Amino acid sequence: MTYANVGTLGAAPGKRDELAAHLTARSQELADAGCLLYEVGVHDDHPDTVYVAELWTSAEAHQASLRLASVQASIAAARPLLSGEMGGFDFTVVGSPLRD
Amino acid sequence: MTYANVGTLGAAPGKRDELAAHLTARSQELADAGCLLYEVGVHDDHPDTVYVAELWTSAEAHQASLRLASVQASIAAARPLLSGEMGGFDFTVVGSPLRD
Repeated sequence: MTYANVGTLGAAPGKRDELAAHLTARSQELADAGCLLYEVGVHDDHPDTVYVAELWTSAEAHQASLRLASVQASIAAARPLLSGEMGGFDFTVVGSPLRD
Repeated sequence: MTYANVGTLGAAPGKRDELAAHLTARSQELADAGCLLYEVGVHDDHPDTVYVAELWTSAEAHQASLRLASVQASIAAARPLLSGEMGGFDFTVVGSPLRD
């Protein structure tokens, strides 16, 4: 079952764009791990927040990706850019009006 | 700029699956209006919530879609299925690690 994870990441003051650049660095490994979609964004009204919307082939694929050495290194590298605030939710996809 | 809208919709008691079915009814009109992705889901831990994650060609396309007669009719038809609780956030996409 396709798994969705969407969330907000608080950026350290002045670090939002650096955090967004970090999160959008090309990663074939994510695709290989079962990541189907990984959109990163910002909102003018919330200048210290980075947004992510992810789709994965399964919740297990998402969990497993967090154990990849490259992903752990990326998380460690992002740490100085984060305020520690996080939000969001996850869900199991049941369908879409755009497909049968 | 690609626009993302993700959210939670509270379902009236016992109406979650009906609401999810309503939201996943095939709609060519959404695609024609600029909807790129519209994933609907559920979570075992939150039995009265339906989740949506949408991507649109622009925030304007999303706003305009809300004025379509078919969308307004769909929202009216969904009203008895909703508890009134809503959450979520929207953002402007700046990139993805899955593409250059």
